[in-house]
Amino acid sequence: MGVWEAMKNFFKVVDIDTVLAHRTVFPVVDVERLPLASAVGRLLAEDVTADLDIPGFARSTMDGYAVPATATFGATESNPGYLNVVGSVAMGESPGSGVGPGEAVRIATGGMLPPGADAVMMIEHTEAIDDHTIEVYKSVAPGQHVVAQGEDIARGETLLFRGQPIRPPEAGLLAALGCEVVPVFRKPRIGIISTGDEVVPIEATPGPGQIRDVNSTTLAAMTIAAGGESKAYGIVQDNADVLEKTCAQALAENDMVLVSGGSSVGMRDFTIEAFEAQPDAELMVHGVSISPGKPTILARSGSKPLWGIPGHVTSAMVVFKILVQPFITYLGGLDDRFRRVFAVPCRLARNLPSAQGRVDFVRVRLVNRDGEFLAEPLLGKSGLIHTMVKADGLVRIEAPVEGLDKGDLVAVEII
Amino acid sequence: MGVWEAMKNFFKVVDIDTVLAHRTVFPVVDVERLPLASAVGRLLAEDVTADLDIPGFARSTMDGYAVPATATFGATESNPGYLNVVGSVAMGESPGSGVGPGEAVRIATGGMLPPGADAVMMIEHTEAIDDHTIEVYKSVAPGQHVVAQGEDIARGETLLFRGQPIRPPEAGLLAALGCEVVPVFRKPRIGIISTGDEVVPIEATPGPGQIRDVNSTTLAAMTIAAGGESKAYGIVQDNADVLEKTCAQALAENDMVLVSGGSSVGMRDFTIEAFEAQPDAELMVHGVSISPGKPTILARSGSKPLWGIPGHVTSAMVVFKILVQPFITYLGGLDDRFRRVFAVPCRLARNLPSAQGRVDFVRVRLVNRDGEFLAEPLLGKSGLIHTMVKADGLVRIEAPVEGLDKGDLVAVEII
Repeated sequence: MGVWEAMKNFFKVVDIDTVLAHRTVFPVVDVERLPLASAVGRLLAEDVTADLDIPGFARSTMDGYAVPATATFGATESNPGYLNVVGSVAMGESPGSGVGPGEAVRIATGGMLPPGADAVMMIEHTEAIDDHTIEVYKSVAPGQHVVAQGEDIARGETLLFRGQPIRPPEAGLLAALGCEVVPVFRKPRIGIISTGDEVVPIEATPGPGQIRDVNSTTLAAMTIAAGGESKAYGIVQDNADVLEKTCAQALAENDMVLVSGGSSVGMRDFTIEAFEAQPDAELMVHGVSISPGKPTILARSGSKPLWGIPGHVTSAMVVFKILVQPFITYLGGLDDRFRRVFAVPCRLARNLPSAQGRVDFVRVRLVNRDGEFLAEPLLGKSGLIHTMVKADGLVRIEAPVEGLDKGDLVAVEII
Repeated sequence: MGVWEAMKNFFKVVDIDTVLAHRTVFPVVDVERLPLASAVGRLLAEDVTADLDIPGFARSTMDGYAVPATATFGATESNPGYLNVVGSVAMGESPGSGVGPGEAVRIATGGMLPPGADAVMMIEHTEAIDDHTIEVYKSVAPGQHVVAQGEDIARGETLLFRGQPIRPPEAGLLAALGCEVVPVFRKPRIGIISTGDEVVPIEATPGPGQIRDVNSTTLAAMTIAAGGESKAYGIVQDNADVLEKTCAQALAENDMVLVSGGSSVGMRDFTIEAFEAQPDAELMVHGVSISPGKPTILARSGSKPLWGIPGHVTSAMVVFKILVQPFITYLGGLDDRFRRVFAVPCRLARNLPSAQGRVDFVRVRLVNRDGEFLAEPLLGKSGLIHTMVKADGLVRIEAPVEGLDKGDLVAVEII
């Protein structure tokens, strides 16, 4: 009896970390070059090093007068200093001439400091005596109200890294560096297959014993939110042969394949058989110590992962969030140090029982109670989609914990 | 001297709530109907009421036997009960016949309970004696391992609401209800104009005194993240006439216009003049008691808002996040009760001074220290984009507060 036979016939339940460790077997997607505007929201595929100083010149941060700071030393309200105004700096141009001791040049916010000036006197602290003379009521320190050349970004500095998400600030930095075209990882393509004799397309009216295909929609939406592209392969009835062919097609056209449904014993066997029949197939995981989501299957065909995930809508969403999404971001090139998951600490609104030996995920709604968040568990059978619609996040109850008490502090991961 | 003249010449600084209260003057965008897959991430434009029960039939949540619960009462390991197996339920079909007292029907997860059955006996608690008889080792209660008709969603129930974001779970619910085409609000269109004689396009190499146009990129990226569509109108040099014409064109083609730059006094005047020259113009705000972002301008032309926001990159991003984004989501139809902003409580890593009378926003990086987050302020002059790239979020220091101390608990809004 081979490994497939052995694993097929009983769960050999593994924990979450064991599942996630399988990611490194798979290759990261290839690279494409996009115009900057289209690269926002994607992952950088190369490190980015500054090829210029920003700003490229000492720059005023105030409207006022560019001065040698020494010319202002000792100036006060009662004992003002006097400076000769010898010109003004035009925005976007190199100042025509410099300032000498006792001289000042008019400058606007963003203007380039002329030679001889090392500080800016705010206009509020001056008074014009005539067209060529100002009184100054304060001293400024060297460098005050000035951003030095290269103070923001120094030429040669590596600022952004392979695998870093391009949020609006990173996009702004790329603009500042003149990166019109940006190397990014291609979006991983995920093929999505629903199974089950009882499942009908959303455009159909369910007959007795039938339900509409919810998972194709939710899994596609979650795939896109995770940075992937989704392709739907519709509903396969409980038929190993058709499922095998559909998986083969989805594997050929995608980087990863999700098969949802088949949580009944017979259907799970079909899914495993269909996976086993793919070229260079290996069953990696059959059963995960989480709830909901225990009967999850992970296999591979060549260098592509294949998932069998529960048909129950909310189980499928939890399995996607906890297990599948980290695979999508890994395939998509995300560097783990840029993973930003900030859980919200909340007080639990009621006791939560939990079985030891598995990690439980409980859907909760967050209620703001006097500035503190209260996490209200949304209990219900795992197939019920209305609990997921009402949920703001998930509470994780770790495997060794028997349960949590009302008032316990929990970290809620927002969904 | 009219209101424009009066407001133009000095700041009459107002607080954040006063700015945001101006939103209600503006109309919400119109409605479009999209296929469900394209509607994910958008805002629902109509309430959605269930036109069917989900599930539409009593449904098994386990593999096992559909039974009348009474037939199992009293069964234990040592004193098993016996049931006649009179058939099996095919998935997706109405069961052929019912079960009588002392009878059971094979059923898989998701199957429809036959008449006479009100519970499911898990297969694990049974043993087959022969093809027609099983021993049962446990009793089940009525309703056990069954989702009743309409238990998830009851026909006639209003489940989703106008102005509610369509996340993956809401998309799943719409699929369950058969909503192939979904009424959503059109994305608000935002015209973006950069100004400044010193600003050059990103494809240009900045000469002395010049900087690349960062704001067109960051503001477009933030607009898209806020659910809008952006259209760029390039860079307008410091020229009131050209700015007026560009604003007019942007107003004609969009629902709102953002002009960035012009934080110098002269340029601010140009921006106000350009706004004033639009038809049915009103200056609503000139100066907001926030830092960074004080010299922010809000005006309207007819029913469309016009913003003048600071040219400094990070000031522009803070003003966008705190003031402009709520306008985009308002114009875009978001119902405020679905606004989900969950701040992360953190300990401040160092003292933060702050001026009273204004709200300060400080960029912070979050560092996980033994499971608790520490917020490290990224101090720097407001024009420096590298602080924004390193930031995870913003700490808000309220107007009456003079400063915060190291170790203070702060709520960090993730950016």
